[in-house]
Amino acid sequence: MNRPAPDLSRLSLNQETVRQLPLPELAAALERTGVPGVGLWRGPVQQYGPEAAARLARDHGLTVTSLCRGGFFTAAGPAERRRALDDNRAALDEAAALGTGTLVLVSGGLPDGSRDLPGARERVADALAELGPYAQERGVRLAIEPLHPMYASDRCVVSTLGQALDLAERFPAERVGVVVDTYHLWWDERVPEQIARAGAAGRIAAFQVADWVTPLPEGVLLGRGQLGDGSVDLRGFRRQVDAAGYQGPVEVEIFNPRLWERDGAEVLAQTAQRYAEHVLG
Amino acid sequence: MNRPAPDLSRLSLNQETVRQLPLPELAAALERTGVPGVGLWRGPVQQYGPEAAARLARDHGLTVTSLCRGGFFTAAGPAERRRALDDNRAALDEAAALGTGTLVLVSGGLPDGSRDLPGARERVADALAELGPYAQERGVRLAIEPLHPMYASDRCVVSTLGQALDLAERFPAERVGVVVDTYHLWWDERVPEQIARAGAAGRIAAFQVADWVTPLPEGVLLGRGQLGDGSVDLRGFRRQVDAAGYQGPVEVEIFNPRLWERDGAEVLAQTAQRYAEHVLG
Repeated sequence: MNRPAPDLSRLSLNQETVRQLPLPELAAALERTGVPGVGLWRGPVQQYGPEAAARLARDHGLTVTSLCRGGFFTAAGPAERRRALDDNRAALDEAAALGTGTLVLVSGGLPDGSRDLPGARERVADALAELGPYAQERGVRLAIEPLHPMYASDRCVVSTLGQALDLAERFPAERVGVVVDTYHLWWDERVPEQIARAGAAGRIAAFQVADWVTPLPEGVLLGRGQLGDGSVDLRGFRRQVDAAGYQGPVEVEIFNPRLWERDGAEVLAQTAQRYAEHVLG
Repeated sequence: MNRPAPDLSRLSLNQETVRQLPLPELAAALERTGVPGVGLWRGPVQQYGPEAAARLARDHGLTVTSLCRGGFFTAAGPAERRRALDDNRAALDEAAALGTGTLVLVSGGLPDGSRDLPGARERVADALAELGPYAQERGVRLAIEPLHPMYASDRCVVSTLGQALDLAERFPAERVGVVVDTYHLWWDERVPEQIARAGAAGRIAAFQVADWVTPLPEGVLLGRGQLGDGSVDLRGFRRQVDAAGYQGPVEVEIFNPRLWERDGAEVLAQTAQRYAEHVLG
């Protein structure tokens, strides 16, 4: 007897998970595997052209679930701040062209030599205020992604879901939401209550999954684990997010050179199988 | 004009900061530099003999501010748990022999294959309950050290000061306290209120300082920064701890191979100078 095919209707693959696949091959492989969603990155989208990428996704029946990423709002100087805002407006235009409603934002770390975390966090709020109307006009929501505290100095001063919600709630829910990413949040015992809070307020803009594995590599950027290989209770997370009222895509986003060395289509098939085994049900 | 000599009366050096120095050389160098405190580790103390180490410290006018470390309480099997408790009783005996009132505890990570963080945290509480009376009889306080969330899976399931206090407060303050370590806690915006809470309840058993620098090395264990080299507002931390009523030692604990490669006495002198510049005042 064959097992019934798993329900992949909510699955989305973030393209960085299989960065070895050029966009057209990725789109074709997703369609073949029955994965209906894709999360895209600005670099490859710009290279391919946002309109062409949108057409490619449509031709393969794919929904673009998010664009990664805007943000990096924490610079203190006015010229740098202006550049960051301009770049985020361009990202919002690209997101609109792709037809995705979600621009993922990584806040940025501490400016060189600074030790002022609260000040940097306040500049993130300033940028959200400035970008909010522009985003709303384009039908794109700004999605604040709290990153693991190990990135607080050099990448993202927003480290917990609670902090991200405190920021988001200064703005209307249709303008600013949050990203719930298991890799960044799994250690935090307050996450269940914060997921409930986010869901009740309609703030969950994206749900991303990756597993936590050790040892962490130098620089700690490229050490995410394939689903099921690590310490995260992925199914428990998914159930909490669902119970909070979220019905959107589940986007797998894994940065790991060991996945990139393999055949992309094979990694995609494995990921769909791991999703069925460790996230669904 | 010479500047007045800095007040080193609260400074303690954790021996791992200059692990290149054997215990007798370390003790002599500390006395020469005018550093009155030392934090010791079980390995070198066992090798030298706890009573001999206590005598050495006394002969050089040094106070042993802490012993590192007990803990690793999260194993699920009864035999492993019994071994861990026995080992912690031995550590308490060693701490008593050294005349220090503080045994630093690193809780332990998730057992192999487990994804149950709440369960592991509960086993830490069980161990504290079991060891509490034994510790109190020896005049040693169990000091729960929250470690940075990047260690949650493989080293310490207690990741925030709030969590450590929730655990500690199940027990009398004279039995169980917490360690406030800037390296582990600097990113957490709730730390100011948690330091105030810890101080008000007399729960601050130790205050340790190191700076946060990136990129993190592979395994993320040996990447702590010399005071002043990184992102942590060390002076702000020290002021908060003081304002909470803590009057004990300030222990510098830096794990960094670049310090170990240098002349130990020179690192010690630099550390005292950095302490004066970045922690005092």
